[in-house]
Amino acid sequence: MSPHPAANHNSSSQHTHSITVFDYNETQLTKTTPTDLRAYGATKKKANTVTWIDIDSSRASTLIEDIGKIFELHPLILDDLHQGQQRPKAEDYDDCIYLVLTMIRYDRTRQTMVPEKISLILFPHLLLSYQEGRAGDVLDPIRTRLENNQHRLRRLGSDYLMYSIIDAVTDHYFVALESFGEKIEGLEESLVKNPDPATLNALRRLKREIIYLRKSAWPMREVIGFLERADSRLIKASTAVYLRDAYNHAVQIIDTIETYRDMISGMLDIYLSSSSNRLNEVMKVLTIISTIFIPLTFIVGLYGMNFRYMPELAWPLGYPLVLAIMLVITLGMIYFFRKKRWF
Amino acid sequence: MSPHPAANHNSSSQHTHSITVFDYNETQLTKTTPTDLRAYGATKKKANTVTWIDIDSSRASTLIEDIGKIFELHPLILDDLHQGQQRPKAEDYDDCIYLVLTMIRYDRTRQTMVPEKISLILFPHLLLSYQEGRAGDVLDPIRTRLENNQHRLRRLGSDYLMYSIIDAVTDHYFVALESFGEKIEGLEESLVKNPDPATLNALRRLKREIIYLRKSAWPMREVIGFLERADSRLIKASTAVYLRDAYNHAVQIIDTIETYRDMISGMLDIYLSSSSNRLNEVMKVLTIISTIFIPLTFIVGLYGMNFRYMPELAWPLGYPLVLAIMLVITLGMIYFFRKKRWF
Amino acid sequence: MSPHPAANHNSSSQHTHSITVFDYNETQLTKTTPTDLRAYGATKKKANTVTWIDIDSSRASTLIEDIGKIFELHPLILDDLHQGQQRPKAEDYDDCIYLVLTMIRYDRTRQTMVPEKISLILFPHLLLSYQEGRAGDVLDPIRTRLENNQHRLRRLGSDYLMYSIIDAVTDHYFVALESFGEKIEGLEESLVKNPDPATLNALRRLKREIIYLRKSAWPMREVIGFLERADSRLIKASTAVYLRDAYNHAVQIIDTIETYRDMISGMLDIYLSSSSNRLNEVMKVLTIISTIFIPLTFIVGLYGMNFRYMPELAWPLGYPLVLAIMLVITLGMIYFFRKKRWF
Amino acid sequence: MSPHPAANHNSSSQHTHSITVFDYNETQLTKTTPTDLRAYGATKKKANTVTWIDIDSSRASTLIEDIGKIFELHPLILDDLHQGQQRPKAEDYDDCIYLVLTMIRYDRTRQTMVPEKISLILFPHLLLSYQEGRAGDVLDPIRTRLENNQHRLRRLGSDYLMYSIIDAVTDHYFVALESFGEKIEGLEESLVKNPDPATLNALRRLKREIIYLRKSAWPMREVIGFLERADSRLIKASTAVYLRDAYNHAVQIIDTIETYRDMISGMLDIYLSSSSNRLNEVMKVLTIISTIFIPLTFIVGLYGMNFRYMPELAWPLGYPLVLAIMLVITLGMIYFFRKKRWF
Amino acid sequence: MSPHPAANHNSSSQHTHSITVFDYNETQLTKTTPTDLRAYGATKKKANTVTWIDIDSSRASTLIEDIGKIFELHPLILDDLHQGQQRPKAEDYDDCIYLVLTMIRYDRTRQTMVPEKISLILFPHLLLSYQEGRAGDVLDPIRTRLENNQHRLRRLGSDYLMYSIIDAVTDHYFVALESFGEKIEGLEESLVKNPDPATLNALRRLKREIIYLRKSAWPMREVIGFLERADSRLIKASTAVYLRDAYNHAVQIIDTIETYRDMISGMLDIYLSSSSNRLNEVMKVLTIISTIFIPLTFIVGLYGMNFRYMPELAWPLGYPLVLAIMLVITLGMIYFFRKKRWF
Repeated sequence: MSPHPAANHNSSSQHTHSITVFDYNETQLTKTTPTDLRAYGATKKKANTVTWIDIDSSRASTLIEDIGKIFELHPLILDDLHQGQQRPKAEDYDDCIYLVLTMIRYDRTRQTMVPEKISLILFPHLLLSYQEGRAGDVLDPIRTRLENNQHRLRRLGSDYLMYSIIDAVTDHYFVALESFGEKIEGLEESLVKNPDPATLNALRRLKREIIYLRKSAWPMREVIGFLERADSRLIKASTAVYLRDAYNHAVQIIDTIETYRDMISGMLDIYLSSSSNRLNEVMKVLTIISTIFIPLTFIVGLYGMNFRYMPELAWPLGYPLVLAIMLVITLGMIYFFRKKRWF
Repeated sequence: MSPHPAANHNSSSQHTHSITVFDYNETQLTKTTPTDLRAYGATKKKANTVTWIDIDSSRASTLIEDIGKIFELHPLILDDLHQGQQRPKAEDYDDCIYLVLTMIRYDRTRQTMVPEKISLILFPHLLLSYQEGRAGDVLDPIRTRLENNQHRLRRLGSDYLMYSIIDAVTDHYFVALESFGEKIEGLEESLVKNPDPATLNALRRLKREIIYLRKSAWPMREVIGFLERADSRLIKASTAVYLRDAYNHAVQIIDTIETYRDMISGMLDIYLSSSSNRLNEVMKVLTIISTIFIPLTFIVGLYGMNFRYMPELAWPLGYPLVLAIMLVITLGMIYFFRKKRWF
Repeated sequence: MSPHPAANHNSSSQHTHSITVFDYNETQLTKTTPTDLRAYGATKKKANTVTWIDIDSSRASTLIEDIGKIFELHPLILDDLHQGQQRPKAEDYDDCIYLVLTMIRYDRTRQTMVPEKISLILFPHLLLSYQEGRAGDVLDPIRTRLENNQHRLRRLGSDYLMYSIIDAVTDHYFVALESFGEKIEGLEESLVKNPDPATLNALRRLKREIIYLRKSAWPMREVIGFLERADSRLIKASTAVYLRDAYNHAVQIIDTIETYRDMISGMLDIYLSSSSNRLNEVMKVLTIISTIFIPLTFIVGLYGMNFRYMPELAWPLGYPLVLAIMLVITLGMIYFFRKKRWF
Repeated sequence: MSPHPAANHNSSSQHTHSITVFDYNETQLTKTTPTDLRAYGATKKKANTVTWIDIDSSRASTLIEDIGKIFELHPLILDDLHQGQQRPKAEDYDDCIYLVLTMIRYDRTRQTMVPEKISLILFPHLLLSYQEGRAGDVLDPIRTRLENNQHRLRRLGSDYLMYSIIDAVTDHYFVALESFGEKIEGLEESLVKNPDPATLNALRRLKREIIYLRKSAWPMREVIGFLERADSRLIKASTAVYLRDAYNHAVQIIDTIETYRDMISGMLDIYLSSSSNRLNEVMKVLTIISTIFIPLTFIVGLYGMNFRYMPELAWPLGYPLVLAIMLVITLGMIYFFRKKRWF
Repeated sequence: MSPHPAANHNSSSQHTHSITVFDYNETQLTKTTPTDLRAYGATKKKANTVTWIDIDSSRASTLIEDIGKIFELHPLILDDLHQGQQRPKAEDYDDCIYLVLTMIRYDRTRQTMVPEKISLILFPHLLLSYQEGRAGDVLDPIRTRLENNQHRLRRLGSDYLMYSIIDAVTDHYFVALESFGEKIEGLEESLVKNPDPATLNALRRLKREIIYLRKSAWPMREVIGFLERADSRLIKASTAVYLRDAYNHAVQIIDTIETYRDMISGMLDIYLSSSSNRLNEVMKVLTIISTIFIPLTFIVGLYGMNFRYMPELAWPLGYPLVLAIMLVITLGMIYFFRKKRWF
C-alpha cells in the first residue's frame, strides 16, 4: 500500500530550505536545526514527546520528495505541497490529517492583501508544518511560547499545537480586517464630499480585495469546522473545545467580511447617487443662468436690429423702458425658480 | 483536567466593579453586595435556592481571573470575558452553559445603535451575569420582579432566570427597531418630495445601522435556537417552552430587520429615480427656453448686421413683419412641445 | 404545573366582546351566544360533539384572563392573545395546539392591505377562535356551512374545523393578490408610456405592500407545513390530507408573491430606463437646435460689428452671400445628424 | 371513508367532452371512444391489461363529478380538476397518485408562452389523463406509439405510460426554450447598436415571460423528483430509472431558464449603459459646439456695441485682428478637446 | 430485463469512427484499433486486465446501437449517447456507472469557450469512453502515461482510469480560466481610463462566457461529488481518495468562476460610474463656459442696441467702464466655481 517502497535518501543536499525541529513535553524541550530529515522518520511512532518539524522551504525543492518517503505520505499530499496558492482544505488520511491554511498578511508597502499558504500534517505525536518565505513569521509567537514551560502548549499534544497554528493564522485575519475597516472608514468620508474618479478607483480596489479575502475565509471556516466535527483519534476531545472557539472566530471573520462587502456595494450606490447629485447641481446653475439671460439677450438683440422704421428706438424713454422690462423678466424668473426650489 | 488547580484568592482588591448576589427560592430572597466572590464557590453545589451573581465590571479587571478560579471555568470562557464586543454565541461546557448576548440600545443623543455585551454562565442552581457599564440597566426589571414573591421567576430555576435575561435583551431590540422604523417613515416622506444630499446621507447612515443590527440579530437567533434544542440537563423542559417563545421573538426581529433592509435598499432606488426625475424636469425647462429663443436670437442678430445692401431694412413693414415671423415661430415651438407632452 | 390554580370567575362583566358557541355533530347543531365562558370549561373533555367557541373581542379585554383560567392555557398563550399584530406561528402545547394566523384583507377605500390576526386553540373536540374587529368576517362562510348538515364539516372533527378556517384565510390571500395583480397590470401600461413621479410613487407603494404581504405569507406556509407534518394526536390522518392541500395553496401564494416581487423590481429598472430614454430625447432636441443656430448666430454677430474697415459690408452681394453660407452650414449640420441617426 | 357513497350516473349527458380509452398489453390493443365512463369503474381492479382513459373536456363539465364517483377519488382531487391553471404538483393518495403538470406551448401567433394544465391519476393498471382544449396535442406522439406493438410502451405498465406523458411535456419546454433563445439572440444584436424604447419593451416582455416559465418549471422538477423518490408500490423500480432521466431533463430546463434569466437581467444593464453612452456622445457634441462659439459670439457682440469712443473700431486692421484672435481661440479650444480625448 | 435480447452485429460497417482498445495490467499492455466491437463483449467479465475502449465517433453513427447490444447497456444510456451537448451527470446502473462530462476548451481563434461532451461507461474491469471530434485530445496525456509501465495508472483499476480522465478534464478548466482571468485583467485597465462602447461589448461577452462556464462547472462538481460518495462496488476506497482530490479541484474551479462573476458584475457598475463621471466632467466645462459668457454676451448686446437716447454710449469712459464691469463679473464667476470646487 505504501506508494514509495524504495526511498533514496540523498537528494536533499541543496540547502535552500531551513528545518527546525522542536521535541518537547511538559518537562523538557530540545530544539535542533538538521539539514535533512532522514533521522526523523521514527518520530512518527515515538509517544512520550511531541515533535514539531517546522520547515521553511521553496516548493520547488526536492525536500518534498524526501518528506514523502520518510513519513510515508500519500502521493496526493506531495502533489499539493508542490503547488502554489491553494484553497484551504482539510483531509483525513487515516494515519494523518493534512491541512492547507491560507494566511492573509496586509502588506503596507504594496497596500494590498497577500495570501500565503501554510501546510500542516498531523500525526499522533508529530506535526509537520511547511511554508514558503515570509509566511512562517506568523508562527513566531508559537515558537516563543514553546520555550515557556508553564504554557499549556507544553502539556498538550500535537493536536493542540495544530490548533495554536490555526489560531495564529485566524488572528492575522483580524489584523488584516482592521486595516481594511480603516480604509473603508476613510473612503466613506470622501464619498459624499468629493466623489471623484480616484474615489471610484479606490472603491474598485477595495471591492476586489474583499472578494479575495472572502475567497479564502469561507474555506478556512469549513476546514476548522471539519476538524472540530472530525471523529478522528488524532484530535482529542479537550482540543475539540479549542477548535470550536477557533471556529467561532472564523465565523466572526466571515461575518465581518460580509458586513464590509455589504458596505462596499452600498458605497458604490452612494457614489452613483452623489455623482448624480453633483450633476443635478451643475445643471441647475446652468439652467438658471441660461434661462434668465437667454430672453434678455433676445431683447437686446431685438433693439440692435437696423430697421429704418423702428418707432421704439426714437422714444426718449425707450431705453429705460427696455431696462425696466428686463428687470421684471429677471425677477419673474427668480421667483419661478424659488418656487420650484431650485436654489 | 481543571486548568487552574492552585487558585490564589487575593487579587480582586481594587473595587472598580460592583457585585450583587441574589439568593432566592419561592419563599425567601436575600440580596447582598459582597466585594469579592471567594465565599460563593460553594453555591455551585447548593440545590435548595437559586443564586444569581450579577457582576458589573470593567473587562480589564482582575476579577475575571478570580471568577475563573472560584467557579473552575474553562480558560476559553475567561479569554472571552476579557474581550470587547463579540458575536453572540452559546457554548455547552458539560458542567455549565456559556452565553454571550448582544444588547442593542438606541442612544438618542448620539442618534445611533450602541451594541453592548452581556455574558451569562449557567450552572444548575447558579447564574453568573457579567456586563460592563450601562449594559446592566436592561436587567433592572428582572431585579424588581425578583422582589415580588408572587412572580413565577421565584418559583422556577436558574434556567428560567437565564430566559428572563434573554427575553429582556430581545425586548430591547423591539424598542430599537421601533425608533428605526420611525426614522425610515420620516425619510420616506422627504425622499420623493425633496431628494437632496442630506437625504442621501441619512439613507447611508440607516443602511449602515441596519447592517450592524442584522449582524447581531442573526446570531442571537442561533443562540436561542441552540438553547431551545440543547438536550442539556441544565435546561428543563418547562423552560424550553419559554425559550421557544423567545426564539419566535428573535425570528420576528430578524423578519423586521430584513423588511427594513428591503425597504432601505428600495429607497435608494427611489432616490435615484427621483433625482433623475428632477434632472429631467430641469432639462426640460432649459430645453424649452433655449429652443424657443435660440432661433429668435438668430433672427434679431440677422437684422443687426451692418451690410450696406440689405433691402429688408428699408421696408416700412420690415420690423412688424419680423416680429410677426418670430411670433409664429414661438407658437409653433410651443405647439411642438405640447404635442411631445414636455410641459 | 397549572399556572393559574385559583381562578376567580367574575371579571368578564364588561360586554365589549361577543361569544358564539357552536356545538355540533353529524346529526345536531346548537348555537348559543353566552356572555361568559364559565360553563364551557367541561367541553374540553366532552367527546361526542365538536365545540367551536368563536370569540370576537378587543385584546385589551379581561376576557383573555378568564379564558386562560377556564381552559387552563399556558401563560405564554395568554401573553400572545394580548398582543397586537404578530408573526403567524404554530405551537404544540401537549394538550392543545396554538395557532396565530394573519389574514390579509384588501381595504378598497384605503387602497392598501390590512393585516388582521386570528388566534386558534385546538383541543381534541374543541376549537377556540379569537379575533378582533372585522377579522371575523372571514369566518362567515364557515358559520353558514355548519348550518348545512350535509356538509363534511359536520361529520369531521375539530381539526377539520381548524383546517376550514385556515383554508378561508388562505383564500383571502388569493383575493388580495388578484387586486394586487390588477394594479401591477395597470402600472405597467403607464410605465413605458408616461414615466412620471406619480408612477414612481405608485411603484414605491406597491413595493412596500408586497414586502408586507411576503412577511406574512412565508410564516403562514411554515405554520401549515408544521401542522401537516406534526405527529400530534390532535390532527387525524384524514385531515392531514386537507392540510397538505392548504400547504400547496400557501406555496402557490408565495410563488405568486415572489413573481410579483420580481416584476416590481424589474419595473423600477424599466422606469429608470424609460426615464433615461426621455432625457435622451430631450437632450437630442436641444443639441440639434443649439448646434445649428450657435454658428449661425456667430456669423450674424460677426457682420453686426461696427468696425470702420470691414470690406464685406460694402459688397453688394455680401448679404445674399452670407445667407447662402448659412444655408450651406445648416444643411451640413442636418446631414451630420441624420448620419448619426439622432433624428 | 369513501366520500361519495350514493353515486347517480345520469349527469354526463351533455357531450362537450371527448373520451378515448386505450386498453393494451404487449400483444393486443383496443381503442374505444365511449360517451360516458360508467362501464370503466372495474378497470381499477383488472390486472392483465393497462387502461388509459384519455379525457379532453372543459373543466366546467359535470363529467368531473362522475369520474369522482366511478373511480372513488378523494374530494380534493375533484376540487383540483375543477380549477384552472395550477402549480404543478404530485400527491400520493394511498390507492392512487395524483399529478398536475403544466405544459408550456409557444404560441407563435400571439408571440407568447401559453401554460396548459394536464392532470394525471395513476392507479396500478389504469391511468386517467384529463386536459382541456389544445393541451392534449402534446399526447399525440404517445397515442401513435401505442399503436406500434414493438414499442416498450406496450410491454411496460401504467407508470411507464405516466412517465411517457411527463417526458412529452418536458420535451415541449425545450421547444419553448429554443424559440426563447432565438429571441434573446435577436435582441442582443439590437441592444448595443440601437438601444431604443422598442428594445426596452421587448426586453420587458422577455423578462416577464421568463418569470412565468420559471414559475412552472421549478415545481415540475419537484414533481418529477417526488415521483422518482416516492417509495410507492405504484411506481416500479424499472420506471424510476426513466423518471431519473426525466428529472435530469427538468434540471436542464431550469438551468437553461436561469441562464436566460441571468442574460436578460444583464441585458438591461447593457441597455442602460448603451443609453448612457449615447447621451454622453450627444452631450459632447453640444459641449464642443457651444464651447467654441460662445466666446466667439461674445467677441463679435463686443464690437457690435455702439459706444461713441471705441478706438479699436477705427483701426484699419481692427477687423482682421479680431478675426485672427478668434481663429487662435478656436484652435486653442480644439487642441484642448483633443487633449481631453473628447473627439 | 435485458432490453435488447436479439443483437444483430452487422450495422457498424461505415468507418466514420475510430476505436482504440488498450488492454493492460501492471506488466503488459496491448493496443489495438479494431473496426468494430463485436469481439469485445466478453471483456466485461475478464478480471485479470483492465480494458479501455476509447471511441471517437460522430454521434449520428450506428456504432452506438452496436455498443448498446454488445455491452447490454440500458436504452437511456443509448439515448444520451445520441444527444449533443448535455448537462454533466453521473448515473449508477447497478452493473455500470454512466458519466457525462463537459470539457471546456478555450478556442483562441474564435476567442470563445467551446464545450465538448465526453461520455464514460465504467464496468469493473472495463472503461468505455465516447467522444466526438477534437474533444478526445484531452485524453492524449493519459494515452501516453499508459505506455509507461512505471506509472500508477498501470497498477490501478478501471476506476482509477476513469478518475484520470476526470482529472484531465478539470485541468482543462484551469487553462480556460487562466485565459479568462487575463481578459478580465486587460479589461479592468481600460475600464476606468477609457470607458467606451467597445469596452462595454467586451464586458458583455465576458459576462456571457462566465454564465456558460458556470453552467457546466456546477454539475461537474455534483458529478464528482456523487462518485466520491457513491457506495458502489465499482469504485475502490483507494480511488475515492483521488476523487476527493478531484472534487476539491472542482470546488476551486467554481470558486474562481464565482470570483470572476463577482468581478465582472462589479465592472459593469464601475463602467456606469466612469461613464457618469465623464458626463459630469463634460457638463462642468459646458457650464463654466456658458455661465461666464452668457452674462457678458448680454451686456455687449445691451450696448449694441440702437436707441437714440442711451446716455452711456456718449460717455467717453463708457467703453472702458463696460470692459471693467465684465472683467469683475468674470472674476466673480471664477471665484464662485473655485469655491464650488468645480475645477
